[in-house]
Amino acid sequence: MTDASSTPALANIGVVGLAVMGSNLARNLASREGNTVAVYNRSRSKTDELVAEHPEAGFIPAFSYEEFAASLSKPRTAIIMVKAGRPTDAVIDSLVEVFEPGDIIVDGGNAYFPDTIRREKAVRETGINFVGAGISGGEEGALTGPSIMPGGSDESWVTLGPILKSIAAVAEGEPCVTHVGHDGAGHFVKMVHNGIEYADMQLIAEAYDLIRRGTGKTPAEIADVFAEWNKGELESYLIEITAEVLRQVDAETGKPLVDVILDQAGAKGTGAWTVQTALALGVPVSGIAEATFARSLSSHPEQRAVAASLPGPDEEFRVDDVDGFIEDVRQALFASKIIAYSQGFDEIRAGAAEYNWTIDLGAVSKIWRAGCIIRAQFLNRIADAYAEQPDLPVLATAPYFAEALTRGQAAWRRVVVAATQAGIPSPAFSSSLAYYDGIRAERLPAALVQGQRDFFGAHTYKRIDKEGTFHTQWSGDRTEIEAEDTH
Amino acid sequence: MTDASSTPALANIGVVGLAVMGSNLARNLASREGNTVAVYNRSRSKTDELVAEHPEAGFIPAFSYEEFAASLSKPRTAIIMVKAGRPTDAVIDSLVEVFEPGDIIVDGGNAYFPDTIRREKAVRETGINFVGAGISGGEEGALTGPSIMPGGSDESWVTLGPILKSIAAVAEGEPCVTHVGHDGAGHFVKMVHNGIEYADMQLIAEAYDLIRRGTGKTPAEIADVFAEWNKGELESYLIEITAEVLRQVDAETGKPLVDVILDQAGAKGTGAWTVQTALALGVPVSGIAEATFARSLSSHPEQRAVAASLPGPDEEFRVDDVDGFIEDVRQALFASKIIAYSQGFDEIRAGAAEYNWTIDLGAVSKIWRAGCIIRAQFLNRIADAYAEQPDLPVLATAPYFAEALTRGQAAWRRVVVAATQAGIPSPAFSSSLAYYDGIRAERLPAALVQGQRDFFGAHTYKRIDKEGTFHTQWSGDRTEIEAEDTH
Repeated sequence: MTDASSTPALANIGVVGLAVMGSNLARNLASREGNTVAVYNRSRSKTDELVAEHPEAGFIPAFSYEEFAASLSKPRTAIIMVKAGRPTDAVIDSLVEVFEPGDIIVDGGNAYFPDTIRREKAVRETGINFVGAGISGGEEGALTGPSIMPGGSDESWVTLGPILKSIAAVAEGEPCVTHVGHDGAGHFVKMVHNGIEYADMQLIAEAYDLIRRGTGKTPAEIADVFAEWNKGELESYLIEITAEVLRQVDAETGKPLVDVILDQAGAKGTGAWTVQTALALGVPVSGIAEATFARSLSSHPEQRAVAASLPGPDEEFRVDDVDGFIEDVRQALFASKIIAYSQGFDEIRAGAAEYNWTIDLGAVSKIWRAGCIIRAQFLNRIADAYAEQPDLPVLATAPYFAEALTRGQAAWRRVVVAATQAGIPSPAFSSSLAYYDGIRAERLPAALVQGQRDFFGAHTYKRIDKEGTFHTQWSGDRTEIEAEDTH
Repeated sequence: MTDASSTPALANIGVVGLAVMGSNLARNLASREGNTVAVYNRSRSKTDELVAEHPEAGFIPAFSYEEFAASLSKPRTAIIMVKAGRPTDAVIDSLVEVFEPGDIIVDGGNAYFPDTIRREKAVRETGINFVGAGISGGEEGALTGPSIMPGGSDESWVTLGPILKSIAAVAEGEPCVTHVGHDGAGHFVKMVHNGIEYADMQLIAEAYDLIRRGTGKTPAEIADVFAEWNKGELESYLIEITAEVLRQVDAETGKPLVDVILDQAGAKGTGAWTVQTALALGVPVSGIAEATFARSLSSHPEQRAVAASLPGPDEEFRVDDVDGFIEDVRQALFASKIIAYSQGFDEIRAGAAEYNWTIDLGAVSKIWRAGCIIRAQFLNRIADAYAEQPDLPVLATAPYFAEALTRGQAAWRRVVVAATQAGIPSPAFSSSLAYYDGIRAERLPAALVQGQRDFFGAHTYKRIDKEGTFHTQWSGDRTEIEAEDTH
């Protein structure tokens, strides 16, 4: 990967931005055979520190963009690891000035995909390649092997592919990176990954809450339940760490840590992006939406304080058959999880159609099997489903999932019924079930909605028995006329 | 309202864009004492037609923007009634060229409020006033009296207020128009109005579906139920027209029209905007979201076709106590409706805080009492609530609503339980109840979510027992440290 330049030591990859994520990614890169890593940070001290603390990495430090460019072999390839938004734009502008056509700029931050589309278009005009790459796995993943979701051109993938494969997490022998699609496809898929993560976490939280309030088990006892679940079809990193969190005891009070943590969940915005984008695409991602809303609801203590006086059911909630209830909750969790992932993949499918990306949905599920937060065996079943039928319209209808839903639906209904009767909020469980019942419904009351729309807004309707678009003259003699389609 | 210009006949108000909404609004204006209306349309034929068909209106037709400007007394005031987006921008640009400082341009279309904020800012630099005004009530309302939600400057309201009051719907002697707030406030409030409308319609559709499938009543019989409900606390235009739609018989087949209409509900995007904006503001509008998603779910026949094979419950759904069930559904509908409106007003409150608008929530509820789609007696109760406590954090906690929720919650739970057991999708009913149970919960499993976030992303947490921000060193010795807040 070196060229005939006169500079003695040349790096094949550079990293700009050396906060924790950037430093860890740089160290990860440096640790892999064949990589020499140039590093640059706006403030010199971070660069000096990193180089001093990690002599084994053989970093080539740069203290200006010119030096940074000069230290890279061609095509120059740099990964930007700075804050999304203006800081990213500023670094891109600086790199474009010192890079040449054919070089590659990678944004490894958490960019909103329309920004990535915009940047790719702007940078492309200079002849330089721009790649938006979603990187999942947090600080730990950046260091030891993340799941990487790059977009960008085919040309850039030729150079970038081997480098990213060298640092990615490995699942069943396969590196967790694939060329997702052009321009913003990588950041789009990373966004949906995070949205699914929101849903998965909320579903786990509801399962915990129901078991705790229904059985009186302690957090440590429920940790055992999750640890047990982690051996079966629910096996996943999130289930695993749930057991860890529930088992943790607060040193100061001796109480379970989960009882000491303030019950207000924060959010960094990717859940909201996922839902906003789904709304624009007309894709119902109700599980992700309810999970996102559950976090915002939790974070308004002034509202919760005044609403605390609203009454719940009279009777106390206590289940008779503890083991049976826990098994019901497990099945409800698995069924709801299938729906959440089905909705998320539906959004990727719709996004690909909208933005003209060719996205291999099975490949996406495979690169999530390690390195990222939603990693799980389960993703192999998604890969199977898309291998069987690449254009599957609803993931949940693939045989493996349909079988699980068929097996689990009675338990799922019992759990939602129990939560409803007990006054325990289970927005993600119940919305997933409502979606399931909605999408499988032979006939929906949407016909009434469309009738109302025709009544008050002359929005017209279609008929079940013939082609065309119709309007009833509601304020006239109420006869039906053929009309222009104004759905 | 005429000035000392030499033109013989001067109009005090003009309308640009003479499609059905614009023509009807122009006729409405012309029919009111004191108004003379100038009209302009890009294609001359529409203008000629309108003037010829309505000689009683005394329209002053204009065939260029220059003529249009010359026919208006000062300050010139024009209402634009063209398509949202570029057509609106084009008309604004043309008017800015022929208008003068102090004149007033009103956009009466369905603009997205950030566009209105942008336009107001741009037009203000010319010294001309720009007012984004939401106009609700459809074609009929435009002609006979709409509900009008203007934003814009205080200066423009001086001239515009009397004109809009002259044409607005009247509720209990009060015109349904108020100066909502500056710049985009009017279109923001109109957007939320439409979002609430989505939720209200979906709730009604779910109520109909449950009654039909639970009792076997015909649409005509259910029309009687809705007509009866319209005499009580549910009294509203949407309940009234639901009865009308359900009673309608298709002339061709002799079947109920609602059974002939294709069950795919269309949408024009304002529901999605409302939810997207709520996500940005961190306001949980789950009822509106579920209603919006229900429409998009209904409109994917290819997905519904493959999902139709997913199984529902074994037993058929049939209620024993028909009257009791219908009363339960009525109470569930009212309770869910309270939540939908509470969420909508929460969004307006949060939007006002975000965009520095001073919005009188009680005044907003009053101007929705007539002329618009969600008109209802119910809105008086909202006005009462905000009159009592203008900074009420959660509308649903106001005494009247809290009492209704307390009275109705048992029935509401029974209905959600019945729907869950029967496999009838009721996303809006169940999400509203989940919100109710969430916001009143003393303790939410959000603490577990925050613990998970701290585990995998070092996002930190707060404690219930002391100030500060904390992090457990999960991958280290699992002791807790004080940390910077990275929620």
